[in-house]
Amino acid sequence: MELTTLSIGIDVGGTNTKFGLVTADGKILEQGRIKTTDYADISAFVEALHQQVSLLIQNHADSGTVKGIGIGAPNGNYFTGCIEHAPNLHWKGIVPIVQLVADKFQLPCVLNNDAKAAALGEHKYGSAKGLKDFIMITLGTGVGSGIFVNGSLVYGDKGNAGELGHTVVRYNGRTHWSTGLKGTLEAYCSATGIVLTAQEMLDQSTSDSLLRKYPKEEITSKLIYDCALQGDQIANNIFAFTGQVLGEALANFVMFSSPEAIILFGGVRSAGDLLMNPTKEYMEKNLLTTFKGQVQLMFSSLNLDDAAILGAAALVYTLT
Amino acid sequence: MELTTLSIGIDVGGTNTKFGLVTADGKILEQGRIKTTDYADISAFVEALHQQVSLLIQNHADSGTVKGIGIGAPNGNYFTGCIEHAPNLHWKGIVPIVQLVADKFQLPCVLNNDAKAAALGEHKYGSAKGLKDFIMITLGTGVGSGIFVNGSLVYGDKGNAGELGHTVVRYNGRTHWSTGLKGTLEAYCSATGIVLTAQEMLDQSTSDSLLRKYPKEEITSKLIYDCALQGDQIANNIFAFTGQVLGEALANFVMFSSPEAIILFGGVRSAGDLLMNPTKEYMEKNLLTTFKGQVQLMFSSLNLDDAAILGAAALVYTLT
Repeated sequence: MELTTLSIGIDVGGTNTKFGLVTADGKILEQGRIKTTDYADISAFVEALHQQVSLLIQNHADSGTVKGIGIGAPNGNYFTGCIEHAPNLHWKGIVPIVQLVADKFQLPCVLNNDAKAAALGEHKYGSAKGLKDFIMITLGTGVGSGIFVNGSLVYGDKGNAGELGHTVVRYNGRTHWSTGLKGTLEAYCSATGIVLTAQEMLDQSTSDSLLRKYPKEEITSKLIYDCALQGDQIANNIFAFTGQVLGEALANFVMFSSPEAIILFGGVRSAGDLLMNPTKEYMEKNLLTTFKGQVQLMFSSLNLDDAAILGAAALVYTLT
Repeated sequence: MELTTLSIGIDVGGTNTKFGLVTADGKILEQGRIKTTDYADISAFVEALHQQVSLLIQNHADSGTVKGIGIGAPNGNYFTGCIEHAPNLHWKGIVPIVQLVADKFQLPCVLNNDAKAAALGEHKYGSAKGLKDFIMITLGTGVGSGIFVNGSLVYGDKGNAGELGHTVVRYNGRTHWSTGLKGTLEAYCSATGIVLTAQEMLDQSTSDSLLRKYPKEEITSKLIYDCALQGDQIANNIFAFTGQVLGEALANFVMFSSPEAIILFGGVRSAGDLLMNPTKEYMEKNLLTTFKGQVQLMFSSLNLDDAAILGAAALVYTLT
């Protein structure tokens, strides 16, 4: 077997942490996972990761040399190498994860937040290969983003650029459950936001809907999608509205950095054309003439399950 | 006298074209102007510029060597060297001004739009010296912008990034007189937008105001400022509202590129604290916690009359 450069991608999530051994061209040779919440202490977590990942490396010792370890994590700061006050992780305060992992593995290690890692992964292995200017929007429980300008990820002054989910798209609109900001993109276009829209639309109308068969707490964006496919009008309206708000926000982003493409990623993308069509329509409607028809809007080409590991693995190539 | 590198800055405006001979450290040795509208034909315009600018160069022949010519113009495209369909200039279509000027002067020549030139000037000679990440907002007849990310101006895919004046800040808000877009920053925070706000506020209230002494067509942002300084309530409300809208928009921009500073420029900045205070207040109010108190908001340190020439002159240093 030909020897290749390998990298380890670790995606730290609130519940699970996934990791994989990845070839230079984006093939995951083997992957595994541990439960993040099983480790109250970060050192025990790193110890467990080390055990598991070492096995992967041994299993594929004849495939190539491991160049380094990339970690994607919520509130992961590229500049400091620390996870900083992540609300969705149980380790509180500042967690110097790069130092801990590099010491334990004796390998170069680099950290980024999960949305920026996703953009790097898309640039190295996915739809954004070869693009210099693009914006990746992750539509999941929250709305994250990673922005490329002139071939590089935008970090901003302190490494925390690209919080597009928290930009306001509806003045004085829906209050965000955690930030308290009003009318932000995340308040409407995250999975959580879509469920809130469903509740509002069901409350404000008396018309029939398949969604009324379910207790409120069982309504998820997946269920809304299923009902929409069965022709349910309210379910369809929910995606039409979500796409409209997303499209309006994307138009603003285009007029900021004039990207070649905007790539949508995350669980919500499984809504497909139900989301894509209104998003494209309202993005185009809100653009200056000079931008109309110029920006490709597309879904990520990466497998959702693999993408987080690939994004983290792509980080390794930012090590100099 | 010590020899220095000189550059020529030419600012093409709808009415006047200003030009100057500028030292490497931003001193304008001499400047002049011609009336843009006097030249129906672009060749005649370039011919007149050549005559006038040649005199300047002769007058200061012992000061240094001219490195090149920078031109700032509305709709000036850095990549193509052409002024493209500028609505405020009487030359229609595509004007290959870089080629015409370079041929006539036999000097390297570079073009950019006026807002990007202003940002380059601020970076080389003004408040943004040494900053890697900043946003310059030009508040004049329109609202323009120039964005620096990681030490470089953001051009985007086709050179037309940074149209922040056309981002929507009020969903379904005031229709822009020329683009037709609803609720854009320019519709509220340009000099034109401020006058529209004044007309709306005067129409919607019956309370006394100094502004009521003037015929509607005589109300300018300068007059509103003068009335505000005299304690006029409506005039003060106009700036409070303008600052609020501007501050909300700036918060969105901060969450995109996380700049160290935002620099306000253009005629409207003469409103000083009347504009700055509400702008700062509403920018901070709309930021995620991680950005609060992190962004310097300031006025340009360059003299308004000189800045356009300096911005154009700074362009010369982007020539390789």
